[in-house]
Amino acid sequence: MLIDALRTRLHADCLIVDADRIASYLHDEAEWAPHGTAAVVVRPRTPEDVQAVVQVCVAEGVPVVTRGAGTGLSGGANAVDGCVVLSTERMIRILEINPLERLAVVQPGVVNDELRAACAEHGLWYPPDPASSPWSTIGGNVATNAGGLCCVKYGVTRDYVLGLQVVTGTGKLIRVGRRTAKGVAGYDLTGLLVGSEGTLGIVTEVTVRLRPAREPEHTVAGYFDSIVDAGRAVEAVAAAGLTPSALELVDRHCLRAVDDWKNMGLSVDANVVLLGRSDAPGPAGIAEAEAMVRCFESAGATFAVRSEDPEEAEALFAARRLAYPALERLGPVLTEDVCVPKAAVPEMLARIEAIGVRHHVHIANLAHAGDGNLHPLLITPPDDPDQRRRAQAAFEEIIADAIALGGTVTGEHGVGLLKRHGLAQEQAPDVIALQRSIKAALDPHGILNPGKVLPD
Amino acid sequence: MLIDALRTRLHADCLIVDADRIASYLHDEAEWAPHGTAAVVVRPRTPEDVQAVVQVCVAEGVPVVTRGAGTGLSGGANAVDGCVVLSTERMIRILEINPLERLAVVQPGVVNDELRAACAEHGLWYPPDPASSPWSTIGGNVATNAGGLCCVKYGVTRDYVLGLQVVTGTGKLIRVGRRTAKGVAGYDLTGLLVGSEGTLGIVTEVTVRLRPAREPEHTVAGYFDSIVDAGRAVEAVAAAGLTPSALELVDRHCLRAVDDWKNMGLSVDANVVLLGRSDAPGPAGIAEAEAMVRCFESAGATFAVRSEDPEEAEALFAARRLAYPALERLGPVLTEDVCVPKAAVPEMLARIEAIGVRHHVHIANLAHAGDGNLHPLLITPPDDPDQRRRAQAAFEEIIADAIALGGTVTGEHGVGLLKRHGLAQEQAPDVIALQRSIKAALDPHGILNPGKVLPD
Repeated sequence: MLIDALRTRLHADCLIVDADRIASYLHDEAEWAPHGTAAVVVRPRTPEDVQAVVQVCVAEGVPVVTRGAGTGLSGGANAVDGCVVLSTERMIRILEINPLERLAVVQPGVVNDELRAACAEHGLWYPPDPASSPWSTIGGNVATNAGGLCCVKYGVTRDYVLGLQVVTGTGKLIRVGRRTAKGVAGYDLTGLLVGSEGTLGIVTEVTVRLRPAREPEHTVAGYFDSIVDAGRAVEAVAAAGLTPSALELVDRHCLRAVDDWKNMGLSVDANVVLLGRSDAPGPAGIAEAEAMVRCFESAGATFAVRSEDPEEAEALFAARRLAYPALERLGPVLTEDVCVPKAAVPEMLARIEAIGVRHHVHIANLAHAGDGNLHPLLITPPDDPDQRRRAQAAFEEIIADAIALGGTVTGEHGVGLLKRHGLAQEQAPDVIALQRSIKAALDPHGILNPGKVLPD
Repeated sequence: MLIDALRTRLHADCLIVDADRIASYLHDEAEWAPHGTAAVVVRPRTPEDVQAVVQVCVAEGVPVVTRGAGTGLSGGANAVDGCVVLSTERMIRILEINPLERLAVVQPGVVNDELRAACAEHGLWYPPDPASSPWSTIGGNVATNAGGLCCVKYGVTRDYVLGLQVVTGTGKLIRVGRRTAKGVAGYDLTGLLVGSEGTLGIVTEVTVRLRPAREPEHTVAGYFDSIVDAGRAVEAVAAAGLTPSALELVDRHCLRAVDDWKNMGLSVDANVVLLGRSDAPGPAGIAEAEAMVRCFESAGATFAVRSEDPEEAEALFAARRLAYPALERLGPVLTEDVCVPKAAVPEMLARIEAIGVRHHVHIANLAHAGDGNLHPLLITPPDDPDQRRRAQAAFEEIIADAIALGGTVTGEHGVGLLKRHGLAQEQAPDVIALQRSIKAALDPHGILNPGKVLPD
């Protein structure tokens, strides 16, 4: 019934019904999140194709789970049994780059780095830069409200989405938002849809705001004996009134995993490295970078320097971006994504360390430290249920501690499946109820990515 | 019944029942928007007071219309017959300014300029700066998603609201959003409430993001014979890749009105003045200001200069801020607020001029020109119904032209009452229906500022 109905509305090559091929579309990179089996995968080419899929799903009462590149880390794109998986892999056109209006219009399957490269050709810059930018799509970035390295100065995906074309839960194809620099006509449906993980609508086109290309950044590196010292350096940078364009924390475990994989010669005599950048123009950039060095030193860095070698600086940031895939090679990784107030960064890092010791769990640390967004990575040997139980207990404790320190359970990865329980801990029942009422209003048939985001 | 019920829940001095005193709370500054008569004005002191008001209104089935300073320009705060007007005038405490986290927590009745001054004492800056900043409140700014002069570089109120405490349409007191730099836990209820003009919830506390204080700005002024030339200069600034921290257009009518009132000695030999600013640090700021001068000249400025006299520069921007109240002294002003793509600014300004001629309506022009947000001001003599009809026709034509050029009917003032018709022209019925479903979900009893924003 379902597949016949889809065949009447879509070109045959849009459908994948072979079970082996379907298998590769059933989950994202959240190792520990459960997933079901889809009835069919559809690969629409046009917004009208997407609309047809939703209309069929409404008629048949079948859930539709949308996915981009599948690089998500919370299980937000995981299939539920009998669903239609809608992949945006064929909606990959950059429709417009407009230097005068400083905006771009893209289909959802466009890869983040491809958009950034296309913008650069026009002297423009699309800031949001999740570490997955070589693979992840703008549609996926919008669905999760993705962050990245430059967020500490330039904000997250939501801050760049001007307008969307969307298929609603009732199968209407609509446009929300605008192309103008400002606009307050009606409720902010665009902002509501960003970060809603495919549960309120399916994005078929995205209009993003761009910035002019930046001057080259100045890079600083600091080595620390302890992660808590590095946390204090982050606090010192904030207290000094600096606004770095990146402030990343990478620990020895991450650097070693990258080195073992890519042989980049990164091994350093430090337990923790902080990488900072300034893109303030002209001499202001050098001054800000040097002020960052002084903050690192005041917090106890064993070594801190402004890099004058652009290649070296680039290699350090490349290593930061490769840390997650490098660690994945060592075994299943359970990725945390808590975000705490800046003042709480040292304390939260100390607690994470203590939790790892207490539960005998190997925790590597990556962090967008400048905005308090920490990614402790819990690494477990494959097929070790005892270790897995202990990692799960550590994961839950990290969440509880982040909330206790005034933080949130997810800074940028989204709730998906892994953080639904955490969401219920973080937010009051009345707030969850409000979100449920919005979900019911926008997806009255309950077919859009059911079971994600909101707790049971 | 209503007033008795309110008396059981609130301190007596919170209530105003005297008709003469009530009269001053019945409307905002949208001269032409209709308003009714309130049953009572309440002036709560605490979030719990606000909650009590909403609970009484739910029980009694009475609408509640919230107002800040009443400086709105769309009728969003106008009373409906029999309603409770809730004034935030007693909720004026700045609860926290936190330099390390770069945030402030305020009650909704805090005046914009007071928050800005308090932040400045800590070396911090709250950017949103509507021209009403000496009077308008943060709560009102949040309700309308207010813009201002610096938006062209720094964004609007929504971009600075991290979290809210809100009383919902069912009388729950909840917190949404966060205090952390990032966070994607659940739907963006904060963003949805910003700009919802009191129709989805009543804001009782606001947490705003702050920036470090800026270096002093560099100011440029350009004189133009025609408004279309000035529009071309705006386009040239965008095309040159500049990012001014303000780019304002003021015409001769506005400058003369300010001069007649304040005797500032502003009269210039120009029909239109463009005022630009750059706050890029150090030499980059001077370079950007001088690049702006060249853009002005290339577009046909009769005179363009970078001001080296801070007092003169300050006077020009002060005149810009005083233009609206100065014009109001000449007669009822019907304020437009369309926003068009930057490329359409010259064409839209030309059309506004032609519309004024065609309808014999005196139109003065103010604009946040750098972001395409135009405020043609239709001035009519008091008690001249014929002139008023012609002004109304001109107003409608401006809206239609803005939509035709890819713009929006409201850039920053909000829909209120005056733009409901325009909203229905701008947005598809399916988009309006979606907003209606959200309104029904969040305000199931229909008591929150009914009749505003959404068209009938």
